[in-house]
Amino acid sequence: MHAPQLQTAGIKKKPMSLENLNELPATEIVRMIGDGTTTAEAVTQACLDRISAREDTVKAWAYIDADYALAQARILDEMPERKPLHGLPIGVKDVIDTADMPTQMQSSAYEDHQPRTDAACVAMLRAAGAVILGKTVTCEFAGSFPGPTTNPHNPAHTPGGSSSGSGAAVGDFMVHGAFGTQTGGSVLRPASFCGTVGYKPTYNLINRAGLMFAAENLDTIGLLTRTVDDADLLMSVLLNRDRAAVIPDDAKPKIGLCHTHHWDLALPETISALEDSAKRLEMAGAEIVEIDLPKSFAGLSAARNALNDFERSRVMADLWQNERDHLSANIAKQLANGSAMEFATYQNAVVLANDSRAQLDDVFGDVDVILAPSATGEAPEGLDYTGDPQFQGCWTILHVPTISLPTHTGPRNLPVGIQLVGRRWQDDKLLSWSRWVVDKLGIWR
Amino acid sequence: MHAPQLQTAGIKKKPMSLENLNELPATEIVRMIGDGTTTAEAVTQACLDRISAREDTVKAWAYIDADYALAQARILDEMPERKPLHGLPIGVKDVIDTADMPTQMQSSAYEDHQPRTDAACVAMLRAAGAVILGKTVTCEFAGSFPGPTTNPHNPAHTPGGSSSGSGAAVGDFMVHGAFGTQTGGSVLRPASFCGTVGYKPTYNLINRAGLMFAAENLDTIGLLTRTVDDADLLMSVLLNRDRAAVIPDDAKPKIGLCHTHHWDLALPETISALEDSAKRLEMAGAEIVEIDLPKSFAGLSAARNALNDFERSRVMADLWQNERDHLSANIAKQLANGSAMEFATYQNAVVLANDSRAQLDDVFGDVDVILAPSATGEAPEGLDYTGDPQFQGCWTILHVPTISLPTHTGPRNLPVGIQLVGRRWQDDKLLSWSRWVVDKLGIWR
Repeated sequence: MHAPQLQTAGIKKKPMSLENLNELPATEIVRMIGDGTTTAEAVTQACLDRISAREDTVKAWAYIDADYALAQARILDEMPERKPLHGLPIGVKDVIDTADMPTQMQSSAYEDHQPRTDAACVAMLRAAGAVILGKTVTCEFAGSFPGPTTNPHNPAHTPGGSSSGSGAAVGDFMVHGAFGTQTGGSVLRPASFCGTVGYKPTYNLINRAGLMFAAENLDTIGLLTRTVDDADLLMSVLLNRDRAAVIPDDAKPKIGLCHTHHWDLALPETISALEDSAKRLEMAGAEIVEIDLPKSFAGLSAARNALNDFERSRVMADLWQNERDHLSANIAKQLANGSAMEFATYQNAVVLANDSRAQLDDVFGDVDVILAPSATGEAPEGLDYTGDPQFQGCWTILHVPTISLPTHTGPRNLPVGIQLVGRRWQDDKLLSWSRWVVDKLGIWR
Repeated sequence: MHAPQLQTAGIKKKPMSLENLNELPATEIVRMIGDGTTTAEAVTQACLDRISAREDTVKAWAYIDADYALAQARILDEMPERKPLHGLPIGVKDVIDTADMPTQMQSSAYEDHQPRTDAACVAMLRAAGAVILGKTVTCEFAGSFPGPTTNPHNPAHTPGGSSSGSGAAVGDFMVHGAFGTQTGGSVLRPASFCGTVGYKPTYNLINRAGLMFAAENLDTIGLLTRTVDDADLLMSVLLNRDRAAVIPDDAKPKIGLCHTHHWDLALPETISALEDSAKRLEMAGAEIVEIDLPKSFAGLSAARNALNDFERSRVMADLWQNERDHLSANIAKQLANGSAMEFATYQNAVVLANDSRAQLDDVFGDVDVILAPSATGEAPEGLDYTGDPQFQGCWTILHVPTISLPTHTGPRNLPVGIQLVGRRWQDDKLLSWSRWVVDKLGIWR
């Protein structure tokens, strides 16, 4: 590995004090509502107050009804029992169905569209006592054409996408957690840019019923939260499992440092964040080993694009035939490409993806977790482009669980994350190691 | 292999004459409309006439509007161009969205439910000129609680399920082809019982946008048609590929005869159909070798049930919370089981499924195609039970493409199919071999 100087300026410090209800971790909120220290209504009100103060700048929400949200919270406060997520406000990316709010896909074609039923993931959290606060802005149909959302750390910069509103709302303390979706880099990139945790589980782990697909061989529902524990709490409810195990403080993990085939895209702040993290984790007892991806994996980027366009042209075939004037030029180009694509091109992409997944055991070897770049660097300036998805997309097509941790800042004092990658269907281990890593890096977990 | 007597009574003969437009193969219909021999309206009218004559008995349709269907056909007749499926009537299982017809899931909860948009697969066929004739009866939410449909060969017998209406309508010459879905055995079993071709592609090959999921790690959209060529024609449109290659008449394939771990469930007519097929194919030049599935595959049946219940309880979480009184006791039991299931049980099932899929190359070895039982036997008497899904389900969870071919009849003169199984993502080869097999067995292809 490289042997960088230990960085002191760029590491993100633990917040000194977080007193407002909208700022506290979800785990803490649930505990406080559970023991009567606060109420669901007070928590929801704190979020709404933050939104009132900041939404004109951040523009994270596609739909929110403050009175309705408070009414939900009051109903929860009046219940005799306390559920696992009782009173916890949650945002939902606006490509995921909600039975009581429109789902508009950031497209005029879906203006005021009202689904019949909650998506599976929404219904599960609601049944566990969550307050579904509102719908967060997505890029058009979870693609790359951005909505109005700005980066909460600097409104001249993109929040990333396509889960733009979920990243910005969680990063701006407007809500404690939010659903996102990732087909390329749509959960981890906004997380890295907005300074949140962004967790994309193993493909298909969070049930996708009620999600508007982009490309079903890639689409994965994920979570944007402020802490690893908060993501784990939500997953424990979605999956009916215990919380992920706590790894002893003196553990000696073997961590695979993986620069990926896209390392030439890394900006200085990403290089620095990765090297600094590796150095600190080594000092904390980890063994750092280099992981080289097989050469064939270099083709996964093109394969991911083929899957995306071919499948999206099927998903949106009705819109493409009948409502083309509602679509951006950006997405129209993908649909035209996918519609014209011969099956053999798509098939080759699928086969490469499957073959690559079959090599993952060899890639991981005996490492506990892989450390990789999360994004190319800080959020780019401007709102027309949500940033390069390569560092996220190569893991998405591999179907592995990945998480972006908000560990560093860059030259403009914007967030820079690092990415940890786990084995398929071993998400609990990834979350356990993620918590150990953030502890060792000295940031708020 | 066993060395049975060559069966002469049970083999299904080529029809001697098929003159009516509703009876001709889809390939022939498209050719005739294309060259002006007939019109879309005449073909649609022929289907509607058959439905008028038979629907009181067969009850295959959940929704059909004759005037609207004819209007669609007339619009197609008036077009200057001829599209790949111009004028071909198609049925759609009533768990797949249609923009112009309700999608009611055979549940009072979804009475008159009108989706916004065509499902991907519907939009693709419609764009290619198909007439979407109507919605076919499904078991409740594509589960096991049956609708009213009867077997077209004997109304006292089940048509199979859950694609009951698609199997019955195609088997009864009411429509030339129909979409079904398979989570356990819901395409191939009705195909075998109703005497149609039933094709379940590789998992995820037909895009599932707009499908109401049962269990997304299993759900596969498939086709019920009367010939292998018809299924191939529809796939060529859905996938933008050429028609599957024609295998030379004098080919010498290696066919793997696989009795599966469920052979004790096979009734005499299934044993006879399988042995007779193997014998005839051997006489036609095939080499028949026994394929033994790994012992661990015996666990796939329980694993499939775990996936089904865990995932279905998420898909239907909103209905389970808020509209439970609309659900049958049958599906309620699955939802209760899935809601209570601990994640570890589900995870073990997923891992077994993944590990089993990884062994498929070894299972297939160098055989060209696997020959297996399609269903336990003829359609059981009675309409309360759609039959045992074991012979279909073990392949569904493996994500391999499979097809049921209507080759034989049983002691009550009801259809008995055989199943051919291909390698994942090699569906075109499966279809090519299927055509060779039906040719050699002397049935209508």
